[in-house]
Parts: sequence; structure tokens; C-alpha cells
Amino acid sequence: MADSENRIDSGISRRRLLGTAGATGLALGAVGGAAGYATASSNSPDAAASLTSLGADRVMFHGKHQPGITSPMQSRGHLIAFDLAPGAGRKEAAALMRRWSATARRLMAGETLGDSDTDVARDAGPSSLTLTFGFGHSFFSRTGLEKQRPTALDPLPDFFSDHLDKARSNGDLWVQIGANDALVAFHALRAVQRDAGEAARVRWQMNGFNRSPGATSHPMTARNLMGQIDGTNNPKPADADFDKRIFVPASGAPAWMADGSYAVVRRIRMLLDDWDKLSGKAQDDVIGRKKSDGAPLTGGAETTEPDLEKTGADGKLVIPINAHARITRPDQNGGAAMVRRPFSYHDGIGHDGVPDAGLLFICWQADPLRGFVPVQRKLDRGDALSDFIRHESSGLFAVPGGAGEGEYVGQALLEAY
Amino acid sequence: MADSENRIDSGISRRRLLGTAGATGLALGAVGGAAGYATASSNSPDAAASLTSLGADRVMFHGKHQPGITSPMQSRGHLIAFDLAPGAGRKEAAALMRRWSATARRLMAGETLGDSDTDVARDAGPSSLTLTFGFGHSFFSRTGLEKQRPTALDPLPDFFSDHLDKARSNGDLWVQIGANDALVAFHALRAVQRDAGEAARVRWQMNGFNRSPGATSHPMTARNLMGQIDGTNNPKPADADFDKRIFVPASGAPAWMADGSYAVVRRIRMLLDDWDKLSGKAQDDVIGRKKSDGAPLTGGAETTEPDLEKTGADGKLVIPINAHARITRPDQNGGAAMVRRPFSYHDGIGHDGVPDAGLLFICWQADPLRGFVPVQRKLDRGDALSDFIRHESSGLFAVPGGAGEGEYVGQALLEAY
Repeated sequence: MADSENRIDSGISRRRLLGTAGATGLALGAVGGAAGYATASSNSPDAAASLTSLGADRVMFHGKHQPGITSPMQSRGHLIAFDLAPGAGRKEAAALMRRWSATARRLMAGETLGDSDTDVARDAGPSSLTLTFGFGHSFFSRTGLEKQRPTALDPLPDFFSDHLDKARSNGDLWVQIGANDALVAFHALRAVQRDAGEAARVRWQMNGFNRSPGATSHPMTARNLMGQIDGTNNPKPADADFDKRIFVPASGAPAWMADGSYAVVRRIRMLLDDWDKLSGKAQDDVIGRKKSDGAPLTGGAETTEPDLEKTGADGKLVIPINAHARITRPDQNGGAAMVRRPFSYHDGIGHDGVPDAGLLFICWQADPLRGFVPVQRKLDRGDALSDFIRHESSGLFAVPGGAGEGEYVGQALLEAY
Repeated sequence: MADSENRIDSGISRRRLLGTAGATGLALGAVGGAAGYATASSNSPDAAASLTSLGADRVMFHGKHQPGITSPMQSRGHLIAFDLAPGAGRKEAAALMRRWSATARRLMAGETLGDSDTDVARDAGPSSLTLTFGFGHSFFSRTGLEKQRPTALDPLPDFFSDHLDKARSNGDLWVQIGANDALVAFHALRAVQRDAGEAARVRWQMNGFNRSPGATSHPMTARNLMGQIDGTNNPKPADADFDKRIFVPASGAPAWMADGSYAVVRRIRMLLDDWDKLSGKAQDDVIGRKKSDGAPLTGGAETTEPDLEKTGADGKLVIPINAHARITRPDQNGGAAMVRRPFSYHDGIGHDGVPDAGLLFICWQADPLRGFVPVQRKLDRGDALSDFIRHESSGLFAVPGGAGEGEYVGQALLEAY
């Protein structure tokens, strides 16, 4: 996943970071502790360690797009959905989005929240924290904004293989949190929950993770809990049509979604005990790629184009007709494209020995009907992988464009109509 | 937490690490992917990133003590307890400990498990992975080794404030897994579960986390989910009596526990909504230390000795009589000492908005009756913190000394009697 324009590169020096914080009026006392990433008090014997780029890296809150879409994947993530409380409407929603935006801006800059801060992230740098906000289908009727509801938010079709828990699906409001430190992420999650106050109630919440930066020499495409390389065919920001496929154009409709994107969120449980029983060859056939290095079964390396027509000595297709990688190829789906930016999840192993683990699949596209939906329709009918996964919850959210200085996310929707 | 003798410092070069792997007979093919931390195939455009010390750092499996006791805390942890399966006894237990030790040695060195490997950690370095193995009270009757059961494993006393879930407490066998990468940790967890095979069944399993290395300039004492600095008063390996307090002496009893330690494991739920409602001053009074920098309320810095007798202008003790830090002071507990090496946990926020979060408290001592028990007895009677926490599960495990080359953990118990 390449840099987004929001991102400050890892080359940022700690001095510069502190300078930025100082410029925003943050007190950096000699005693330490006033800032989120302040140094330990100097007479502590443990004060020698320094903040690495992992801690110092930050992503900008303000920008054309919201952060957390093209930002590099972080090692820890939280998803949380809220429903507006009974009696809360457009006014309360606008106030909440204003609070959330202010919190996101401050935390992503490594600032504290002052007296209301729980101190869980104290001493830590922003650690590439991102907060991303979206609106679900039900948000618009709750706020009297039905006329502004994009048709792209029409409910996803039912898929044959779905086993959806409605209580863990959708929601009026959705927040995605990611950071390279678990306490920084948890701190942000609790701040988001506190900001909700009386205006909104938690509908569902999920935790996820990815590789830690530096743990692998191959970080750009991650492995999932099946051991597969995931994300090889993601559109790249350098692609000519990347913006068109992922973001609603500035002139798009509805106008308040300019530079926004649509997120499809699926909690996909992996039936790991069944999967792990397959031979390596059988696993490769399910995917159509070699698990070892992600190369197509027709040869080459991870980034080599698969030869979908190639047959073996036995006359059979080398990449089986129901291989996952064949079915998800954009050229097999009318050019459908989305950026997949998932987290793995693992909610423990039960007394029965079965892990509750899999993928918090999150994909981003300018139009779900040209991204997730056609691909999932094909997977639903004939994906060899479907025997080993189960879609357990689903969400679809309109994620507005980024907030400019002094603005809050969703302001164009909540104040313009 | 200082280095253990098992630890290879972060200065280890990647070349040296690869060299070590090569020496153990691991194939490092030009195509990449054969080793757990092999480079990506060279024609991948994503291959540029290099393994940092986070990924390359490793802890030695073989040593005087098992790893994971004095090793630096890792950012991700799993605890898993097993009961021996019906019909499984000493022989099956010995074979299982042999399998687990072999797996731990290989994974901690960054090797793969060959054809049975799930590939989840593929491309990643060992990332400071540790696996630590212990035996619970019930293990000894199941294996006909009652006479070798240490009195130190006698069940912990009931505490007034306990709310223990027996199904998530104790167990015949216990494994602690830690790593600085979540997929490396998950990979090891699944390998441990696979090794259990027909010999043992999962009793309970929990996930935890700590700060990521580099996320903070103050890593030696961690913050917990209450925002408190935790671990300030931990015994340090440089202390003259450290070994005596934490490890069973080489001449200790029973002989098979030479250089071993006892782990007390408590899942301590934090009532964060109640806690977060307190003012900063009220929180400081509960703990007896300033949340900001961990300094005692009587002044100084985190490492300053608290003045337990000091009174304020109002004649009251500055550090309240029921302050957590007062009650847990070793000099208030007959010198009781233990090394606390916990993980935080967060198993999600429920529909009621309440987080299931807190501390996987793990402490290490040569004798629980001179470590955890006297301290918890005092906390049980008068700790101001007890209104904000709830002990939900409990375990006590005998953790044998480290395995030498060619040995497995627990061999002295399982083969000598």
C-alpha cells in the first residue's frame, strides 16, 4: 500500500514532530508527561530509550481524503459501529462529528485530550494512528437526510454463502481506528466511545491486527491467518485510474461525497482447522497461487500476470476454474476494482479448540456496484475458498472526503442541506 | 525489565541470523520463502523493505531458565491452558513436552516447521518470540507423579474479592507465548495447539498485548489500560537477591524444579467506565502515585522511594492508607517479591458499551507463598483499587528450568522418577 497524500514520511525527525506539537500550543514541560509522546522524566534510569519512527510517524488528519484508506496498514485496528440514541437526530449527529473530528485531529498529531484524557497513550508517539468515519444507510433516515442518501448505500444483495449476524452488521455510524501500537489504538477507541456520550450507542466493536513494521522483509502484501499472501492485486495509487476507482470524484454525486469512498466491511471467519488439513498443493489450487511466494501457479513471481488459459500435461487448467485468484481478477469482473485494506482478527480459541479467527475484510471503492458486489457475486457462486470461510457480518458505509482546516468530517452533509 | 541470559541483543545482524539458520540445515533458496524470515523473491517490486531489529531479534530457547520470564515484554501475547485428554498419562505428556520443546526451539530461531507449517509467520523474523511451559496442580495426579508435586503448587487461598470462572482457571498444562509481531505469535499458538494432538485438549485461551517497541520513549515500565505506569517496583536482575526471589535454586526442592519459577496468572478485568469517571486527583490517591509520571505522591520521580509516613497540612497521610502502591510495597509484606510481567487484554466492547478489558496479570516468583499470596491477601482486605478491578480467573503453574541442548522442558520430572 503506497503513501497517501496525508502521510508524513517516516523520515520526520522527532525534533520536527515536537516542533509541530509546540506550534499547536501544547505545553512541553521539563518534567515530561504533558505531551502524548513526551520523554520520561530525566532522572528516571529507564529514560534512555528513544522513540523510533514506529512511534514518531504520524498521518495527517486534514486532507483531500480521510486517512486510513490509502495509508499503510497498521499493526493494530479497531472497528466500532454506533447507532444514534433515541431522540438524537441531525443536530446531535453534527455535534458528534465535530467532537470526533477534533479528537481525531489531536490524537493523530500525538496530542493529549487534556483533563479528559485516560493517559493510556501517554509517553507514546502517534504511531501512525488514523481515524476514519463513515455513515451507514440507516443514518440518513435517523437524521432526516434521506434525500442525500447515495444510491451506492443501497443494501448489499444477499449472498448465498452469507451467515450474517445482523447485530454485528451495519450501523448508523462507523469508525475505523488503526495504529502501530495497541495502546495508542485502544486509547483512541475509548476516546471515540467517550465522545459519543448520550448521542450514540455502541452497536458492535471488533479488534484486528496486521504484521508489525519491521517484522518482515516483505511488508507490502501481508499474510493472512491462512498463511496466504493477501493484497497482491490491489490497485496502486500510481495506477492511472486509481483515484477514479477508489474515490468519488470532486464533481460526483451526491456533492457531499466529493473525494469520499465507500467501505465494505465483512467479518470473514476462517475455518482454519479444515484449511490446515489440506496439503500445500491443495491449498495452492484453492487460491491459484503458490502460498510460498504468492506467484501464480502458471509461474513467475508474485507480481507476474497469471496465465488463465494455460493447461497442464493432463489438459486441465493450471489455475483451476474455481481458484480464488481467477475469480477475483479485475479482468474477469468487468474491471471491478477495490482497495483491500483488511485486519486479521483472533478472538480466542474456545473450549472446543476451534479458533474464532479470520479476516476483518475492509475494501474501498468509488462505487460498491463496481467493486465489491460483482466480485462477491462471482465468489458466491464458485469460489473454491468458500468451503474454508464464512462471512459472519457485513457493513456498508459512506466515508466522506477529508476535512479541511477548521472543518469536521461530514460537515458538507450535515450543514449544507 | 532487563535482559535475560537467554537473550541475543538487538545488535545481532541479519547476516548473522541467516548464518545461524543456515548452520541448522535450513535451505535458503534463491527463490525465497524457504525460511521463516527469507527475503521476498528478488523480482518483486515490494522486496526493498528490510527486516529491522524488531523482526530479527531472537531469544534463545536453551538456557538456565526458560525464556519469557525475564525477557523483555513483547507487544503481543497468548496464554493457553490444556488438560490432558482422557487416557493420556505420563508417557503422552512426555512426548508432548518433547514436541513442544522442539517447536519452541525452531520457531524462536526463526525456522519453519517444514511441511506442517501453516506459513502464517512466513517472511517474518522471530520477532523476539518466546514460549514458556508450565504444569498445573492437576497435572501431577493425571500423570501419577503426585509425589513430585511441589507444595508451592497447593491451591491459592480463596480471596474475598475473587469472581473466578473455574473453566478459565488453572489447567494441567500452560503455555505462555510472546512476540513483537501478532502473526508470529498466532503462528506459534496454532503450532502449540497442533502439537497437542490427541494428548491434550484446550481448556482456555486468552490474548494480550503491550506497547510496541519504539512507540514510546519510556518502554521499561509499561502503562496499563487504566493509564497507570505499571511495574515500577519490579525486582531488577541486577538486585543481589533477584535470583533467589524469582527462581528456585539449583539445590532447591523438588530437584526437577531447579532454576524454575512459579507463575501466578490472573485475568483482572478493569471496570474502566467507573475508573475513567474519577478525577485525576482521585485516581492518584487510589494508586498513591501520580499517573502522569509514576512518581510517589510524596514527591520525586518514578524511582524515588515513597515516604509512607509523610502527612500533609491536614494531618492526613499523603499516600492514603489504602493506596495500592502502599499495600504492594515489599517492605510492607515481609519482603515478598515477584516479577510482574503482564499483558493487557481487550476482548471487545459489548452491545452495552462496556469494554471487556483489563490485565492478564502474570507474576513470577520462587515461592508463591513469599510472592503473590501475601501481597494479594493484603490487597484483598484494603486496596482502594479493588473497587475498579475484578479477578475473573486464576492459575498457578510450576515452570521448570530451561532445557539444555538436546533436552526438553520438564524432562527431569517426566523421566527421572
